[in-house]
Amino acid sequence: MKAYQIEDFGLENLRIADRPMPESGPHQVLIKMQAWSLNYRDLLTVKGLYNPRLKRPQIPFSDGAGEVIEVGPEVRSVKPGDRVTNTFFEHWISGAATDETAQTALGAGRDGVLAEYVAVHEDGVIPMPGHLTYAEAATLPCAALTAWNALVVEGKIKAGDTILTLGTGGVSIFALQFAQMHGARVVITSGSDEKLEKARRLGAAHTINYKETPDWGKQVRKFADGRGVDLVVEVGGSGTFNQSVAALRRGGMLSLIGVLAAGGEANILAVLMNGIRVQGIFVGSREMFAAMNTAIEMNNLHPVVDRIFSFDNVKAAFEYMEAGSHFGKICIRI
Amino acid sequence: MKAYQIEDFGLENLRIADRPMPESGPHQVLIKMQAWSLNYRDLLTVKGLYNPRLKRPQIPFSDGAGEVIEVGPEVRSVKPGDRVTNTFFEHWISGAATDETAQTALGAGRDGVLAEYVAVHEDGVIPMPGHLTYAEAATLPCAALTAWNALVVEGKIKAGDTILTLGTGGVSIFALQFAQMHGARVVITSGSDEKLEKARRLGAAHTINYKETPDWGKQVRKFADGRGVDLVVEVGGSGTFNQSVAALRRGGMLSLIGVLAAGGEANILAVLMNGIRVQGIFVGSREMFAAMNTAIEMNNLHPVVDRIFSFDNVKAAFEYMEAGSHFGKICIRI
Amino acid sequence: MKAYQIEDFGLENLRIADRPMPESGPHQVLIKMQAWSLNYRDLLTVKGLYNPRLKRPQIPFSDGAGEVIEVGPEVRSVKPGDRVTNTFFEHWISGAATDETAQTALGAGRDGVLAEYVAVHEDGVIPMPGHLTYAEAATLPCAALTAWNALVVEGKIKAGDTILTLGTGGVSIFALQFAQMHGARVVITSGSDEKLEKARRLGAAHTINYKETPDWGKQVRKFADGRGVDLVVEVGGSGTFNQSVAALRRGGMLSLIGVLAAGGEANILAVLMNGIRVQGIFVGSREMFAAMNTAIEMNNLHPVVDRIFSFDNVKAAFEYMEAGSHFGKICIRI
Amino acid sequence: MKAYQIEDFGLENLRIADRPMPESGPHQVLIKMQAWSLNYRDLLTVKGLYNPRLKRPQIPFSDGAGEVIEVGPEVRSVKPGDRVTNTFFEHWISGAATDETAQTALGAGRDGVLAEYVAVHEDGVIPMPGHLTYAEAATLPCAALTAWNALVVEGKIKAGDTILTLGTGGVSIFALQFAQMHGARVVITSGSDEKLEKARRLGAAHTINYKETPDWGKQVRKFADGRGVDLVVEVGGSGTFNQSVAALRRGGMLSLIGVLAAGGEANILAVLMNGIRVQGIFVGSREMFAAMNTAIEMNNLHPVVDRIFSFDNVKAAFEYMEAGSHFGKICIRI
Repeated sequence: MKAYQIEDFGLENLRIADRPMPESGPHQVLIKMQAWSLNYRDLLTVKGLYNPRLKRPQIPFSDGAGEVIEVGPEVRSVKPGDRVTNTFFEHWISGAATDETAQTALGAGRDGVLAEYVAVHEDGVIPMPGHLTYAEAATLPCAALTAWNALVVEGKIKAGDTILTLGTGGVSIFALQFAQMHGARVVITSGSDEKLEKARRLGAAHTINYKETPDWGKQVRKFADGRGVDLVVEVGGSGTFNQSVAALRRGGMLSLIGVLAAGGEANILAVLMNGIRVQGIFVGSREMFAAMNTAIEMNNLHPVVDRIFSFDNVKAAFEYMEAGSHFGKICIRI
Repeated sequence: MKAYQIEDFGLENLRIADRPMPESGPHQVLIKMQAWSLNYRDLLTVKGLYNPRLKRPQIPFSDGAGEVIEVGPEVRSVKPGDRVTNTFFEHWISGAATDETAQTALGAGRDGVLAEYVAVHEDGVIPMPGHLTYAEAATLPCAALTAWNALVVEGKIKAGDTILTLGTGGVSIFALQFAQMHGARVVITSGSDEKLEKARRLGAAHTINYKETPDWGKQVRKFADGRGVDLVVEVGGSGTFNQSVAALRRGGMLSLIGVLAAGGEANILAVLMNGIRVQGIFVGSREMFAAMNTAIEMNNLHPVVDRIFSFDNVKAAFEYMEAGSHFGKICIRI
Repeated sequence: MKAYQIEDFGLENLRIADRPMPESGPHQVLIKMQAWSLNYRDLLTVKGLYNPRLKRPQIPFSDGAGEVIEVGPEVRSVKPGDRVTNTFFEHWISGAATDETAQTALGAGRDGVLAEYVAVHEDGVIPMPGHLTYAEAATLPCAALTAWNALVVEGKIKAGDTILTLGTGGVSIFALQFAQMHGARVVITSGSDEKLEKARRLGAAHTINYKETPDWGKQVRKFADGRGVDLVVEVGGSGTFNQSVAALRRGGMLSLIGVLAAGGEANILAVLMNGIRVQGIFVGSREMFAAMNTAIEMNNLHPVVDRIFSFDNVKAAFEYMEAGSHFGKICIRI
Repeated sequence: MKAYQIEDFGLENLRIADRPMPESGPHQVLIKMQAWSLNYRDLLTVKGLYNPRLKRPQIPFSDGAGEVIEVGPEVRSVKPGDRVTNTFFEHWISGAATDETAQTALGAGRDGVLAEYVAVHEDGVIPMPGHLTYAEAATLPCAALTAWNALVVEGKIKAGDTILTLGTGGVSIFALQFAQMHGARVVITSGSDEKLEKARRLGAAHTINYKETPDWGKQVRKFADGRGVDLVVEVGGSGTFNQSVAALRRGGMLSLIGVLAAGGEANILAVLMNGIRVQGIFVGSREMFAAMNTAIEMNNLHPVVDRIFSFDNVKAAFEYMEAGSHFGKICIRI
């Protein structure tokens, strides 16, 4: 079967290879993959920036969807013919993450899912919401679940809350959708007026072009009744942290998300004086995923897919991501 | 000024009297009342069934809305001209209820608000959502806040949840609205197909006529993916408790609400074996009220007012409530 | 190997039989059992009162401890030589209980552990605290974990809290110990002054003989600063529920525990008016068990073992339990 | 009456002045002060480092204890003769902190309590635990409540947890005591072996001299079963944050406390990847204070008072604090 491999670091060394068909053990599920989605983590991984000691060759990608074609004799939760996604962590079922479950993340340390066929333990497979296409479902394992964990599980979002999302990448747009699903109001930032207009059409209450308003923290606070927002989905690069803190209300929560968030000197004093909670978010468990899927299906939510590339064009997809002009998720379809 | 008084128990002894204009102390707010809403508790109080030792004469009603016309020199949170509602408890500001704050409930032990003018401590006054009429706002202090406390504060409702509400009274219809505001799904019961049809139009996903399906617990469970609902808003009379328990999922929550809920032998064993939480709900704090008002305004929610009676017709309003054919709230307007 | 079997209901039909040595599958652990503890559920099961449709013959008991003598090739968490207990549910690892995990309770529907050798999935095995004897460790799976779940997981007990435990059975005495471990104060009831004296020696702050003070709810409230206790561990028979509610503070929690708790007409109105939470507790997950074991070891806690019977004397142990004169747990030792 | 005043910044400009006796309004309580405690915030305030725009002259100090000698006609909660402490915030009663309540902190923006007589609103007065001296009680308003909020309210500490405290100042030693009160285990760091020995005598399970082990994060993790601690009480200067993060378990909590905590480049990536919660803690509410006092009294806890200076020697007390050789709290006694 065909699979992409990071043969060496650099986009030019990501190549389609012939791999033996995976054999599935007694607890495993064999999936004929149909679609995938890209995360910024994948780009960093391919370039050697996520884990410089990554063993190569390695199959990248944490997110995919497909059809179950075979299950081991011990598998109980899915059957051939089921439309499924894999989970980001193969073995984080429920409860608190542990060092062991955290090591079962796919696509950056162990082979990921960018292959025609994938065999994973049934712990790592979950039926997809019935109304979604494979490409839409492929956006869920990392970006959607991260936003869900930040807003719903840790953030305990409720109607009447105001949240701030930075930019218009996958996590941010899911946060926009999930917040509205809960009767909350969204302020969104971007450097592009065109993207902000799209965000408004998706329901954002207030938008800020951070290029025009570099000191946007104060402006966000004004939008939030002068009191500050309840929650920030912080996916930004250096420099955004302190603006995010300035945007928050006393006792508010800043969700630290995504590998972009590092860098800069954090205004720890403001965190302290305002009783702010900075919560690291690293995707989520299968139990959270199941709850999210129920919500997605019940509310007929469709993920925002910016563009779909073919399996042969993964490099072009990465280049498109790097250009940064997307809004929502970038997908691959076989 | 004119005020209704319970001179003795019985609807026939509820009379309009002349009362001196209330004087407002340094922390008090004088409100020219514009509208009120009825709660079942008021009917029981007037009839002597809520508190048989109630001192008479006493002004009934816990819920009203009006315009601030005067404030004491120490008042900071409102000013003349503000449109406000009173709170159910004059002094439950935030945190846990205490025996002291619980004793400050209006209209059943201390004079209530069914008068032309009312003076209350500023702790007991809250600005009403700007888009509501006085009659709509007058529905909030007891029924809406009870539903909010049950679903949002204690129930931590989230998108994808399924809740069950019993009947179509004030609390149940607010629960229907608040659940949907959070992306949750609602199953509702009633003895009237006409009311169930109204509930469907308001967004209920599933309806059950309990007269046709006396054993409705099982049926509700089926509607909730065979697993059971996450939360029941239990306002029913005797006999509903065990059906509600049967409708709940393992680990689900049954909110005990309203003075109707007593009676019958409870299936305590099922509560135990299924890890169910039975949570008594007694209205809520001012802090919860403020959060609810923000949610109501943000989501442009309008309370469902079934019928508005004039100030002179409070007895007719009580009789209408007693007949039980209302859907949502019954109000009084000056 | 030898194993007890419920051949038919009734203590007289509980007999030692010869059973084939259990074979352990790839994920299973074979334990040479060393000790067991009795729960009231076991007595009811043997008599046919817990589950009248129980398939027979069936091996009873949910609680045991022993030494691992063999593990399947897939087992990762334990190895031969480890001293372990089994868990009450073979497959409730973490997160919320589900209908599926709830059906994996041992000893009342599926074979339990009252046998010389037991094979269970590694999910259902947990290393015992190092400082305990096998008999002490055998008390943990049901009674200790139930008390831990009630007080720590659901009850979020903290220093300064006051709790009430009813009687001096296994769960109640663990509750007494765990409460003190958290800096909380304990009121305990019993019908025996001798047992109350023992409880005082174990650290109970206040004791009540319910035979002398049938209306003990009020008395407990007085002990709790006139305000009421924060939590009741309700394991009593009919009639205790309403006294427990009377003993609770506004917003307090009543943990419904054990198969004794059914019966009587519950004062639902008091639950409602005082915002009380009635929480069904049905043992707990493996994740909770691990946390409890850490606490037990860190605090050098020893379970209170009333009496140890030999493997040949299980019937005598049941009769001793039925007589009700024990204080803490009754154990069996090979 | 005599009161200390910051006449200008610098310890040399802190002088005793004659101030008019405070008049107490209808809701106020007049306290004859008996003892005070120093916090590092006071030192910074006096030197102009806490708030460079502080209005002068101003009375410093947030923490004191004394006897009520007069109450306004509206005061309900205390009476003359009561032994009380003031609260850090005059008006944060319960619930979430707001911008308004946060501005009522004493001693750095509004006059504090380092005076012979102090009049505060009854919201800002709380009876002291009966078994404490005035000096002991004077340690509670800031340091003790901060530790309580971090461990108990936000940290939800439970038996079996392991916590890390940095250094041996007031907050850290209270954290040590409160953790043990809950059956938790404490690792403590200091630059002085003598202080570490004192900490061991107070019950610390593990101690680390950070001068000998600059990379102490890893060492702490080892002490915590190789898994990492559940909670860090982070009061350190620059450089400690990243070691604290390294010491934490996945999903652990770092409590940001005290004005020392600023500075240095934070390892935000580790916070993210390990799902860590960084929680700003800014003292606490009156409701928390009351719960803490109940716990202190129930467990007969005595605050660790390092040394008591006389009212005339406040400068010497500040110099002693600056020297950094204290262990626990420094107090003033009239």
